[in-house]
Amino acid sequence: MKREYRAERFANTFGPHASVLTLDDGDILATETLDSRGRNGLMETVAGPPNPLTGPFYVRGAEPGDTLAVDILSLRPNRAYGYCGTAVAQNVVDPAYVPNLPTRELATWEVDAAAGVATLTEPDTALGHLSLPLDPMLGCIGVAPRGQQAISSATSAEHGGNMDYRGHRQGVTALFPVFEPGALLFVGDGHAVQGDGEIVGMGIEISMDVELRVRVIKGQSINWPRGYTDEFLFAVGNARPLDQALQHATTELLTWLQEEHGLDPVGASILLGQCIAYDVGNVFDPAYTVVARIRRSLLP
Amino acid sequence: MKREYRAERFANTFGPHASVLTLDDGDILATETLDSRGRNGLMETVAGPPNPLTGPFYVRGAEPGDTLAVDILSLRPNRAYGYCGTAVAQNVVDPAYVPNLPTRELATWEVDAAAGVATLTEPDTALGHLSLPLDPMLGCIGVAPRGQQAISSATSAEHGGNMDYRGHRQGVTALFPVFEPGALLFVGDGHAVQGDGEIVGMGIEISMDVELRVRVIKGQSINWPRGYTDEFLFAVGNARPLDQALQHATTELLTWLQEEHGLDPVGASILLGQCIAYDVGNVFDPAYTVVARIRRSLLP
Amino acid sequence: MKREYRAERFANTFGPHASVLTLDDGDILATETLDSRGRNGLMETVAGPPNPLTGPFYVRGAEPGDTLAVDILSLRPNRAYGYCGTAVAQNVVDPAYVPNLPTRELATWEVDAAAGVATLTEPDTALGHLSLPLDPMLGCIGVAPRGQQAISSATSAEHGGNMDYRGHRQGVTALFPVFEPGALLFVGDGHAVQGDGEIVGMGIEISMDVELRVRVIKGQSINWPRGYTDEFLFAVGNARPLDQALQHATTELLTWLQEEHGLDPVGASILLGQCIAYDVGNVFDPAYTVVARIRRSLLP
Amino acid sequence: MKREYRAERFANTFGPHASVLTLDDGDILATETLDSRGRNGLMETVAGPPNPLTGPFYVRGAEPGDTLAVDILSLRPNRAYGYCGTAVAQNVVDPAYVPNLPTRELATWEVDAAAGVATLTEPDTALGHLSLPLDPMLGCIGVAPRGQQAISSATSAEHGGNMDYRGHRQGVTALFPVFEPGALLFVGDGHAVQGDGEIVGMGIEISMDVELRVRVIKGQSINWPRGYTDEFLFAVGNARPLDQALQHATTELLTWLQEEHGLDPVGASILLGQCIAYDVGNVFDPAYTVVARIRRSLLP
Repeated sequence: MKREYRAERFANTFGPHASVLTLDDGDILATETLDSRGRNGLMETVAGPPNPLTGPFYVRGAEPGDTLAVDILSLRPNRAYGYCGTAVAQNVVDPAYVPNLPTRELATWEVDAAAGVATLTEPDTALGHLSLPLDPMLGCIGVAPRGQQAISSATSAEHGGNMDYRGHRQGVTALFPVFEPGALLFVGDGHAVQGDGEIVGMGIEISMDVELRVRVIKGQSINWPRGYTDEFLFAVGNARPLDQALQHATTELLTWLQEEHGLDPVGASILLGQCIAYDVGNVFDPAYTVVARIRRSLLP
Repeated sequence: MKREYRAERFANTFGPHASVLTLDDGDILATETLDSRGRNGLMETVAGPPNPLTGPFYVRGAEPGDTLAVDILSLRPNRAYGYCGTAVAQNVVDPAYVPNLPTRELATWEVDAAAGVATLTEPDTALGHLSLPLDPMLGCIGVAPRGQQAISSATSAEHGGNMDYRGHRQGVTALFPVFEPGALLFVGDGHAVQGDGEIVGMGIEISMDVELRVRVIKGQSINWPRGYTDEFLFAVGNARPLDQALQHATTELLTWLQEEHGLDPVGASILLGQCIAYDVGNVFDPAYTVVARIRRSLLP
Repeated sequence: MKREYRAERFANTFGPHASVLTLDDGDILATETLDSRGRNGLMETVAGPPNPLTGPFYVRGAEPGDTLAVDILSLRPNRAYGYCGTAVAQNVVDPAYVPNLPTRELATWEVDAAAGVATLTEPDTALGHLSLPLDPMLGCIGVAPRGQQAISSATSAEHGGNMDYRGHRQGVTALFPVFEPGALLFVGDGHAVQGDGEIVGMGIEISMDVELRVRVIKGQSINWPRGYTDEFLFAVGNARPLDQALQHATTELLTWLQEEHGLDPVGASILLGQCIAYDVGNVFDPAYTVVARIRRSLLP
Repeated sequence: MKREYRAERFANTFGPHASVLTLDDGDILATETLDSRGRNGLMETVAGPPNPLTGPFYVRGAEPGDTLAVDILSLRPNRAYGYCGTAVAQNVVDPAYVPNLPTRELATWEVDAAAGVATLTEPDTALGHLSLPLDPMLGCIGVAPRGQQAISSATSAEHGGNMDYRGHRQGVTALFPVFEPGALLFVGDGHAVQGDGEIVGMGIEISMDVELRVRVIKGQSINWPRGYTDEFLFAVGNARPLDQALQHATTELLTWLQEEHGLDPVGASILLGQCIAYDVGNVFDPAYTVVARIRRSLLP
């Protein structure tokens, strides 16, 4: 069943908050996300930073120990105004280079969802009016965390959160461990475009119309967010330093291959050794994000 | 001019060693690399671990402060026997998962250079006789390091070294800072196939026939290895942790875009923020490798 | 004024929870802390893991942007039974050493608060009945975090939390940034003894009688927990990796010396360069803790 | 036997270089070290940066697989002029604080070895003429590295090197793994005073008269530098990030306690868990240094 939710209240933490809507297993949710500063498609400011979240959505039947599957059916910027940062983040360059970085200001982009391009409008740089193909994604997606915590929408952990992974785009199914009854799904922080690592601290930030299908996978317990497309399985690690994020992602993918895809420990090691791909989700947020991927056609 | 060199002696460090051959700027070098255990195309053991290196090659005209360009013209496995590890490395998984890893042994692959595939022959796992398309690369490539150091071919630094980056494949031009007269180029540790991160500590290890063109770029001083293909410019950072390797690579790419590609600081930040791609070279060697890439068509 | 509070309900997160008692600026609070498994001085289990916290205590007059000072007047184990872990944590040793670690079990200690010693009673090891002088400390101390977060008592951040720093002992004044009205002070996780780093994941865990004085420092805004004794000023950084925790602590101490102790930037650098001391608080919890200290007699 | 060596040539790498003097097992070596810029006690510049090393000294009988013991008998600054940096290093503070750091210049100290104090003479800061008690130490001490490497005297590894650990002071015995025949001992980079971490990149740098006794411990193979005083045993880890340096040091100390001090795995874990102390050697050099210590009186 398709459910529409026009967002009225927003959260700045992923936590065990009162839900805004209850969904059934299999429902399609059509809703909207605000930009990172709390503005909607009409450029009305209806919430404040950091990253106001739409939700939480209570998914009937989801219990701790289950997995919540979220099929990202459609992500569509719902206005023309996008913005991003003008300075690579200080933590992403050599410490000695920090004084050479430009001032952090905003660049603005004109986003044309119909044409599928974003065009740089300001400031005036050697890039001129650079145009980039849209590749919309959700910077924030996740559920209520473990242990009744309420964790800022500026960061991420086992529950997902502000992962700023550009693989969270249309056509992907994202999987999250369920820690609270109903899972309590939140989404927000849409980007029309983003590079690996979100190294200026922003993608092209914009409000979006979003369609998601929610499904409950009973009795499947996972440790970290996972996901898949037609081509790839992936596992996500959120932590600092990058090394630890990569350890989490690799361990989760190794586990998955053995528990559900028929691989033995040696086979899983050989396969990942020669065929794994890593994505750097973000290296800007308090917790960094690394994704480990494997091509599905390689699985037995 | 094309120069052939049949390798007779090998080095286990990148250092200011006596050269095995002198090349002119623009020469094409046809030579061979041993596998990581010192065996050639006839499976004769002619050197010992770690990663015996072919070279060094003295390139006439290269002086400290210049850049050495190495066009990788051809990499071709020159025998059928390849091998890789059977266990993901202990540092790549969560510490609590370490006891679950399988024993480190060798898997063997039959490498068919004509057909362009590698086929797993042993051990017997759920992968069966998995076949993978060849994508040959050089695990070790670099020059004599800064300050008369001799650095093991097991690791990497500003001079290149054992970067185990699968982007060092045919069709790529690799650039290195010159620290010693003649640059002193070394190559070795060929892999027929390798996943991101070299997480079993090996690619499909094999000896190779190699063709490289060397060129001296006078007066161009770089801090870290760089490179390019028709599609991408890339910069390499070698360090631990991954965070620092990423800082080095990002800083080098930012610098390059501004010094040679006409970008101002703000333009370079905006472009990389929305368009940079990161590759995880290796997360196994003492120094890890991260590569920052940008599509050349995006440059002004 | 002295206020007694017999703990009845406990929290497992540092968060904006309803307070259990309101204190006035300058009040002395006499209360108790449970052990890490929720047992009190009578060995009754009255709460569950992780680290059940006593509080929160609302301190009248404390507003966001102020600092809460907590004078640790007395920490006294209130029973004889203490326990610790038997295995160094997996993340604290080289990955290759992990399989050599013993199984995680519990060692038990007889704690004699009157005599001031803890004596190992089990298991039977080459240590025999090792006796150690008591040095009681609070593993958990802090306030409600920034942005209405509720953060697990297993970890730490700007608000303090589970820092497991053995400098949080009797005679110390601990300072915390105030993020919520009333500050909302929590304490817990007492250790009779602990080594640097809490590397078996536990000190000698025990319930305690605790006396603290709370004071509000109006208008003093700090970024990270600070503290002082008669001899030292210290600043605390909580993060992973250790490098980042050390950066936070160093930055906070540098700032403090300049804002309140009359040092100019160059003087502060020279002084810290030649006289700073670092303590490793813990390297076990999700966020590690590093403390930067300077001897007060060296200040102008 | 006591051997004097007036230094004439110097090395900038720890490597398998021709020795300057051969010592017998048990010999006392009286020599001198230059300051980090290559000046001797007469302020003559006789070598260049980085950290010119006195040595190597060939110790008869030392073979790969043995341990070299170096008793630091006396370290005495041999001139009045000392210098240090005026700015905390960029990598030691939060990236956002980097632009607030002062410029890197030199502060000068008058070092009075007879009186045992160093007094700040310039620049003019709020510290005035701060006087500090001398605590002379060797920033560089170590042997030729593994595998015929030559490693810069700016950094450190298993062979020791530029560890900048202020525990390498008079009264300490330092132990190094032997990788080359004769061990090839090097010393240099004396500091009259230094804080933990060497966070301005320098101690109070000065030339010194040095007395060391060398001893060969046959057949004792160690992985990382160790050492002891009357009070403590310690093990050293050199790596980045700090987390890895700490892992190396902890693993080495755990191993030592079990191999030579009669502790079983559980006993060693319990003891270190409640009694280990960590020192931050340096957080400035390319490899950081962490030292793990245990009080000898606690050993069975």
